[in-house]
Amino acid sequence: MTTLRSYVSGRWHAPTAEGAPLHDAVTGEEVARISSQGIDMAAALDHGRRVGGPALRELTFHQRGALLKALASHLREHRDELYALSARTGATRTDSLIDVDGGIGVLFSYASKAKRELPNDRVYVDGAVEPLGRGGTFVGQHIATPLRGVAVQINAFNFPVWGPLEKFAPAFIAGVPSLVKPASQTAYVTARLVELMLGSGLLPEGSLQFVAGSAGDLLDHLTEQDLVGFTGSASTAQLLRTHPVVVRNGVRFNAEADSLNCSVLGPDAVAGTPEFDLFVKQLATEMTAKAGQKCTAIRRALVPAALLDEVAGATAARLAKVVVGNPANETVRMGALAGLEQREEVRRSLKALMEAGEVVYGSPDRVDVVDADAERGAFMSPVLLKADPDHAQPHQVEAFGPVSTLLPYRDAGHAVELAARGAGSLVGSVVTHDPDFAREVVLGVAPWHGRLLVLDRDDAQESTGHGSPLPMLVHGGPGRAGGGEELGGVRGVLHHMQRTAVQASPRVLGAVTGRWVAGAPRAESEVHPFRKSLRELRIGDSVTVGPREVTLADVEHFAEFTGDTFYAHMDEEAAAANPFFGGRVAHGYLVVSFAAGLFVSPEPGPVLANYGLENLRFLTPTFPGDELTVTLTAKQITPREDQDYGEVRWDADVVNQRGESVARYDVLTLVAKQ
Amino acid sequence: MTTLRSYVSGRWHAPTAEGAPLHDAVTGEEVARISSQGIDMAAALDHGRRVGGPALRELTFHQRGALLKALASHLREHRDELYALSARTGATRTDSLIDVDGGIGVLFSYASKAKRELPNDRVYVDGAVEPLGRGGTFVGQHIATPLRGVAVQINAFNFPVWGPLEKFAPAFIAGVPSLVKPASQTAYVTARLVELMLGSGLLPEGSLQFVAGSAGDLLDHLTEQDLVGFTGSASTAQLLRTHPVVVRNGVRFNAEADSLNCSVLGPDAVAGTPEFDLFVKQLATEMTAKAGQKCTAIRRALVPAALLDEVAGATAARLAKVVVGNPANETVRMGALAGLEQREEVRRSLKALMEAGEVVYGSPDRVDVVDADAERGAFMSPVLLKADPDHAQPHQVEAFGPVSTLLPYRDAGHAVELAARGAGSLVGSVVTHDPDFAREVVLGVAPWHGRLLVLDRDDAQESTGHGSPLPMLVHGGPGRAGGGEELGGVRGVLHHMQRTAVQASPRVLGAVTGRWVAGAPRAESEVHPFRKSLRELRIGDSVTVGPREVTLADVEHFAEFTGDTFYAHMDEEAAAANPFFGGRVAHGYLVVSFAAGLFVSPEPGPVLANYGLENLRFLTPTFPGDELTVTLTAKQITPREDQDYGEVRWDADVVNQRGESVARYDVLTLVAKQ
Repeated sequence: MTTLRSYVSGRWHAPTAEGAPLHDAVTGEEVARISSQGIDMAAALDHGRRVGGPALRELTFHQRGALLKALASHLREHRDELYALSARTGATRTDSLIDVDGGIGVLFSYASKAKRELPNDRVYVDGAVEPLGRGGTFVGQHIATPLRGVAVQINAFNFPVWGPLEKFAPAFIAGVPSLVKPASQTAYVTARLVELMLGSGLLPEGSLQFVAGSAGDLLDHLTEQDLVGFTGSASTAQLLRTHPVVVRNGVRFNAEADSLNCSVLGPDAVAGTPEFDLFVKQLATEMTAKAGQKCTAIRRALVPAALLDEVAGATAARLAKVVVGNPANETVRMGALAGLEQREEVRRSLKALMEAGEVVYGSPDRVDVVDADAERGAFMSPVLLKADPDHAQPHQVEAFGPVSTLLPYRDAGHAVELAARGAGSLVGSVVTHDPDFAREVVLGVAPWHGRLLVLDRDDAQESTGHGSPLPMLVHGGPGRAGGGEELGGVRGVLHHMQRTAVQASPRVLGAVTGRWVAGAPRAESEVHPFRKSLRELRIGDSVTVGPREVTLADVEHFAEFTGDTFYAHMDEEAAAANPFFGGRVAHGYLVVSFAAGLFVSPEPGPVLANYGLENLRFLTPTFPGDELTVTLTAKQITPREDQDYGEVRWDADVVNQRGESVARYDVLTLVAKQ
Repeated sequence: MTTLRSYVSGRWHAPTAEGAPLHDAVTGEEVARISSQGIDMAAALDHGRRVGGPALRELTFHQRGALLKALASHLREHRDELYALSARTGATRTDSLIDVDGGIGVLFSYASKAKRELPNDRVYVDGAVEPLGRGGTFVGQHIATPLRGVAVQINAFNFPVWGPLEKFAPAFIAGVPSLVKPASQTAYVTARLVELMLGSGLLPEGSLQFVAGSAGDLLDHLTEQDLVGFTGSASTAQLLRTHPVVVRNGVRFNAEADSLNCSVLGPDAVAGTPEFDLFVKQLATEMTAKAGQKCTAIRRALVPAALLDEVAGATAARLAKVVVGNPANETVRMGALAGLEQREEVRRSLKALMEAGEVVYGSPDRVDVVDADAERGAFMSPVLLKADPDHAQPHQVEAFGPVSTLLPYRDAGHAVELAARGAGSLVGSVVTHDPDFAREVVLGVAPWHGRLLVLDRDDAQESTGHGSPLPMLVHGGPGRAGGGEELGGVRGVLHHMQRTAVQASPRVLGAVTGRWVAGAPRAESEVHPFRKSLRELRIGDSVTVGPREVTLADVEHFAEFTGDTFYAHMDEEAAAANPFFGGRVAHGYLVVSFAAGLFVSPEPGPVLANYGLENLRFLTPTFPGDELTVTLTAKQITPREDQDYGEVRWDADVVNQRGESVARYDVLTLVAKQ
């Protein structure tokens, strides 16, 4: 019998007590023992802050992303070990895929987001530069910097791999060390996951710590720089949220709690339509995947009153085909609950639900199982109920197992009203092919939801389903669902960072953000900045070229050559009637083409390509006879970690002979490092 | 003697009790009485939800912004009434300007942000469309919708006008009704403000309610759709935050608490530099403005040890010139504290601070006053201390009055460490002309701050100062400062909305967001979409034109004409060596110019101008001989409320003869309504 070890303060820690037994959900056998006795929680937090944080903050977002990608590949090579352990939690092979591959997928996704959407830097710049005075000498911008504490991640039993990884990935990218504390029931899976992660040798020391067993006095030692991310029951969330130290120190607290998620069938989706079948299939899947132990499962199935019996019949027929039993048996489609206690709790909740409705399929107490002992393993039949939607129970009682309730509704407004009675959910879905119904329900129920899926014949094949949070979309929900928000790509990274408004002169703001800010000094040198390699180039390096006159002949020639004979360029009288021009003007495309003709350095050199333009605005019309001068300034430099080039963003400012800005935009180029 | 009335449930409410007296801070006279007795708080919340919310949600962001602008103008016409009342709170004319004009400025700023940065729609779209499958049939995007509850706004006594307005403006723009509850001491100013606001006739009924007096059982009736925004002491914030209903229902709670803000003088800023003078002047100003009763005031002045005595001397000299007394007297520079109780509290805190240091200027108990009775009015001298920075008190004890402490530091690292001992602040400032020092301190202390100002000779003239939150920048701070965030332009609006990830087919996602999404059906008709007025045009209206061949002669001609003779266009051998091209390619500017030549409709019509381009990416090189076809699709339509035209954003997709996207971008146009 193994006793799970923790990893804290730079070493593996064996508990000083024998620990509590953890049981195989299928056989009831003891799998491991668990105890956190003897761990110095204050020291662990301190280690994260003193060793893990600084090591992570040394790295840029891109470097952290590259490590995360390598870690994901490493875990993918070892996933069979995780599947094997996962089966002992009652999970089928499909359930394990969601947990293990889903978790590894979060790492890949965050690695990619870091590279594509974050700078290769340590500071995140949030939003535009705000002018704070008319003279341009005082400006503001928001930055985000990593919190200097530890992200304490308290996870639920149902996803022992995905749960820790979906919290770890955004913290790691943000530059904040993690301390992972899984729920006991399935902690042996997380323990192996953490061994694999640490064994990869990829993670800076202190960036990942692991506590098997109770959190002890961990929360007593939190500061205003630490965070708590909690997934579990609403009641535990409330307890932790009101912990005196959490409250006194303003510890950032995020909770995902179970919620009474709904799925709404559209009135257009009558029997025989693809959407009817999709609704039934999805409902049965959500009831039985992970034996219904998903905080995102469908608990309330809202169905047009006229379709209720047909939906009930079709769903029952589908559930009847679900083979329950030992996940090791290949015919099994639904495994065990996480343990006998969980089953007792589900049965208690079911009793409350049955006061408000009747069972359409299944039984709380009886189930046929394959290859297993129905009493020693935590097996249970899927149970579908139908109920009067005016009763309170279906909107308040969550049976955290393979249980769902059908509720009839009258019209879209009624469906929205019923959905809202969940008082805050992680996810909802609408199954319809009618975009008007979809819009009405989505916008109607959105204030109560963190995520909404509209399922129809068009997206069904690619849909990831009602129950699956995705790393690029937020996961969380208001009210009962915990009021939290995780994931959502960069949003989840920013949850681990402090947003700060910085007010300064353009010169100093640029020094803080590492980007050139309009109004800051420029450096003009003998060498054209396009002749400088990425290593030589500095923020603020600049070139001014011109003037070049734009003649009427140029405008007419450009019109003829390109085919763009818009009247404002060609017809003096018509152009004069245009409210913005008052006469013939040059094409905007001509202005930017001439500007490029001015600033380009023709010979081969470090600038490899212009891959785009951003934020182009034509600010003043260019009339024939105007003279254009362009200033190009290096604004942001982003070396790529895995290439011998990087991206340079240039500020382009085209002015006329009166000094008015004619066009302003960012030119995006790829520049060789050497 | 007036008793303040409340405005709830659609009517003015006179209290059923006599109420508690409110005193003139200068004379001690009774100004008004206050009581909320008899108010049905549950009914008031319900009124906001049933009447105010729906009325606001009928309006678009732009329409709400237009109302806010009109309201701001209305208040500006009546500000003299507010100044007069404000003087009775002890405020000088300058103090009143900060409060009254500052508050009105927030309304103007939000009106402008709504128009410029939000769509003329009821749904906010947050971030890009995320592809969720390879086939393009399943996509995701985040939307934000207004919470369906009431924003309960509990304000502090020090800014009876700015406080309510800075919370009201973002809620109003978001579409969420407000219930304003000011602190009692200065509630008579807020009461008049609310009368003026309601008297304007501009606000939809239910969008603004007002409770004078205690909140009673207000919090007991909050749901998961309501919000609480609190400004005041940390201890009250903790009490409200842990209110059982707030916790159970996951009520969104935001707090701004007092904090021990610091200002850091750079080692470069020795006596004789502009920055030395700026530091001293700012410190004295922050101590005396509003008699130091600002949660953003400088409590800890961090000074290089070598400069401590000079700073102390210069600041004391400046403070000695501050005339204290009746704000009605024009020579007076600092008025009274809000009341005698406040003064007692400041004296108590001062006593604690004096255990750790010594008084450099002023006295806790003695002050010379002009035109007033120093004991009946809540007058107090500015008090400057200096202390050993290792003591706890200067970092923990806040004297909420004209009090600040000088603390010596050794080097930048030490300054950062000391700043962090405030355990979370609303604002900090760095006074230096050295960008490296500024960068080190700003990035070092940012995790503890909501806002940071770098003051130097370059921005001093336009700087709004350490103590002034600005509507376009976030106001809040971690930890001790409350862990909250207000304002920050659109960020403050989004605090009142629920972010929801929507997953759907492109067609349905477009129906939900009101924007065309790549992959959604397009509508091609006989009529070129450039011939349709804003009223006729529909999202998805589209035109496809082409192909047009790009010849080598075109490329050479364009190079010669524009002057852009970059080798990749001109030199086959050199171009072949470029890692991205493998041969001569057409200019990106040529591609977009030819595309415009294809899609433009030359005759005068509803399209008035192309005012910009966004997100242009060149995705595949165009080689001589390639044939270009462009599809233009109406993506977003934004009518302007106050003009006879609006903005149309078009998706432009240029493909070659192999169907590969060559360039993709948004074309921004102005289109007439008729």
